Amino acid sequence: MSIWEIMQTFFDAEIKKMKIKTCYFPLFVSNNVLQKEKDHIEGFAPEVAWVTRSGDSDLEVPIAIRPTSETVMYPYFSKWIRGHRDLPLKLNQWCNVVRWEFSNPTPFIRSREFLWQEGHTAFATKEEADTEVLEVLELYRRLYEEYLAVPVVKGKKSEMEKFAGGLYTTSVEAFIPNTGRGVQGATSHCLGQNFAKMFEINFEDEKGEKAMVWQNSWAYSTRTIGVMVMTHGDDRGLVLPPKVAAIQVIVVHVPYKDADIKEILNACSATVKALCDLGIRAEADLRENYSPGWKYSHWEMKGVPLRIEIGPKDLANNQVRAVRRDNAAKIDIPMDGLVDKVKGMLDDIQQSMFDVAKQKRDACVQVAKTWDEFIEALSQKKLILAPWCDEEEVEKDVKTKTKGETGAAKTLCSPFDQPELPEGTLCFASGKPAKKWTYWGRSY
Amino acid sequence: MSIWEIMQTFFDAEIKKMKIKTCYFPLFVSNNVLQKEKDHIEGFAPEVAWVTRSGDSDLEVPIAIRPTSETVMYPYFSKWIRGHRDLPLKLNQWCNVVRWEFSNPTPFIRSREFLWQEGHTAFATKEEADTEVLEVLELYRRLYEEYLAVPVVKGKKSEMEKFAGGLYTTSVEAFIPNTGRGVQGATSHCLGQNFAKMFEINFEDEKGEKAMVWQNSWAYSTRTIGVMVMTHGDDRGLVLPPKVAAIQVIVVHVPYKDADIKEILNACSATVKALCDLGIRAEADLRENYSPGWKYSHWEMKGVPLRIEIGPKDLANNQVRAVRRDNAAKIDIPMDGLVDKVKGMLDDIQQSMFDVAKQKRDACVQVAKTWDEFIEALSQKKLILAPWCDEEEVEKDVKTKTKGETGAAKTLCSPFDQPELPEGTLCFASGKPAKKWTYWGRSY
Repeated sequence: MSIWEIMQTFFDAEIKKMKIKTCYFPLFVSNNVLQKEKDHIEGFAPEVAWVTRSGDSDLEVPIAIRPTSETVMYPYFSKWIRGHRDLPLKLNQWCNVVRWEFSNPTPFIRSREFLWQEGHTAFATKEEADTEVLEVLELYRRLYEEYLAVPVVKGKKSEMEKFAGGLYTTSVEAFIPNTGRGVQGATSHCLGQNFAKMFEINFEDEKGEKAMVWQNSWAYSTRTIGVMVMTHGDDRGLVLPPKVAAIQVIVVHVPYKDADIKEILNACSATVKALCDLGIRAEADLRENYSPGWKYSHWEMKGVPLRIEIGPKDLANNQVRAVRRDNAAKIDIPMDGLVDKVKGMLDDIQQSMFDVAKQKRDACVQVAKTWDEFIEALSQKKLILAPWCDEEEVEKDVKTKTKGETGAAKTLCSPFDQPELPEGTLCFASGKPAKKWTYWGRSY
Repeated sequence: MSIWEIMQTFFDAEIKKMKIKTCYFPLFVSNNVLQKEKDHIEGFAPEVAWVTRSGDSDLEVPIAIRPTSETVMYPYFSKWIRGHRDLPLKLNQWCNVVRWEFSNPTPFIRSREFLWQEGHTAFATKEEADTEVLEVLELYRRLYEEYLAVPVVKGKKSEMEKFAGGLYTTSVEAFIPNTGRGVQGATSHCLGQNFAKMFEINFEDEKGEKAMVWQNSWAYSTRTIGVMVMTHGDDRGLVLPPKVAAIQVIVVHVPYKDADIKEILNACSATVKALCDLGIRAEADLRENYSPGWKYSHWEMKGVPLRIEIGPKDLANNQVRAVRRDNAAKIDIPMDGLVDKVKGMLDDIQQSMFDVAKQKRDACVQVAKTWDEFIEALSQKKLILAPWCDEEEVEKDVKTKTKGETGAAKTLCSPFDQPELPEGTLCFASGKPAKKWTYWGRSY
């Protein structure tokens, strides 16, 4: 939760700069409004949880728990928006949602209840909506890359993979080299006017004519934390990027035979205080019923970015020993200038974790121009970049052909940053003229 | 939601100083654990909402939505707490809960879903638990009195009114003069060892002996906002205390015949900027399609504490006109030193709203020493302070005898600040020797 809170503090401040206001809408949604947008309900219906009873009584009409809040909010948008002066309407809520999935539940990645923020905005023009979609997507990139040290690709989802009921979906996509799977990190949707039509969200424009709003919705969830865990974790446990670690530095005392234990403990406490005074989240583990070795493993498992050990030799040399969680490097630091040095090391760990993750991710990217290359790359758990004709039937066909125990391959996104596509390049799957480069792979 | 966020920022920072950590537990709770504490489930069972279906499939076992999270969390407390070094365990979560009530649903005061914080802590000793109960209760008093400008009484609930399954309950109680009803503002419970017994939350103490933890739970909800609205609102709409108002100052321009509109608009914008630069939440309403009068009513209805009007005469005199929402007082303020003056006025409004609310509340307090006095005071919608024998049967009896269209009278709390109880004072209801002074009344 402290990781979540740190991300929330960053993101909430950024969207408030964009004049987006916090709101809260109900957990429950009636079947009636849930059904209004046909594509939308088709996408979510199988996962909706229904309350049918309270106490010992059956409800007259079952009521759904929100899987997402478009249908909860937009009836109110319709009431609140009358004229162009009521626009833009920009809201965000922090809440829980429920999607009752039975296939492959995975903590953080795919769980029945999760926490998220969901932004819902309405504009007079498509241009304003388009601009905001990308502004928010950039915030999602920053969350992943600057806070979680996870490299992501910004791009557009295929028609098949876009948000149910929306016009187009953009996303940040991460990739987990160990499992060879892509993972959708967060999504920023332009809903177009589909929901506006169904929920009658109209306004009188500046010319006095009736018009329909353009809408966006966008969300990131506690899945972010799961992606971070999978990206950085190793066989000794969690590895946390300093920017989101609740404890950035753990100070452990190293008693030794006849050494003056009190002096060591005092040095540990003084070190923690000096670090905390300058805004570093440091704690001491001075428990005497555990050995230093036990504590090292304990705090490594919890992912604390930097460990400081203080023993009699360190005291004698007026230094401490620092051990990095990310690469196990051990460095002796003089007591003088300790805080600045630690600050520098934490920044370095943050950057280094991102760089290493990016190198690993980049090493998985494989260009596939033919079906054989595609299948070969897929069997090697690669993140496949392939020229594609952008036809839904072809994506369905690829899915069918690659269906197996480890799941079918699908499109992850078409990156905004497109490599050159030479005239005459053909789709790897259909042989038709390719329209764009697209990332493919198995995914969470 | 901005009122909620302002309270949350205050309260969350205060409990973090108390080393209480943020947590999040699931929305769903199995019937199995929900049933573990018998008194607890008896208290909540009639209001529990049950999910029995997902998509088109019936669940094998229905699952409940949390009405409160004791039974969700304590199985984990049992796993996490082993030795005295694991104590105290102090957690808090911000979340939604559901209580499916059919009688008298009232927005904010009694709604099926509401937002709250719920703190759950476990200690090695009763003394630590007792101390924390009162520390948190003091924070609740501060929320009401310092932020919402609502006077409250701190006290202890009767055995009948205490938290289901707990040892004792303390609360802050507000009173709404217009309706003559008390309203429980927030509660801080000592759960004793009842839940520890049922959920087997044991630890090895310093002597190596097995012991049971002492637990507290405490919560305030969005009901706080309802209490504030009822306390201060008038026939023109909301009246918001400056400390929690999203907009503290609304600046309205007053055009007049041939006056230079541009100059007026500039003065408005400059005023807003000057106020915002010094941390005052100010906005301008410069819409030209609404009259000043329409805007005055509009922002009064929304409860904005201070309105600043700027017209040609004000400009000529190098001043603005300020109008207080709470008492409609109109004051001309010189442009020089405007910001300081406005800050002072907002502080004054905050204090004055509390003082007025307290005077009104105090005027409702009626001491009743006999049954006849009690019934008379009840018919006059008073907040009744009566000597009581502290027997459950007597409270039940009073409830039965006063049952009517407007609801039965019950105990609100026994105030910590007890007036003197002379030897020989008798219970107003039973005629037995009185043990304490207790507040009685109808309530929300």
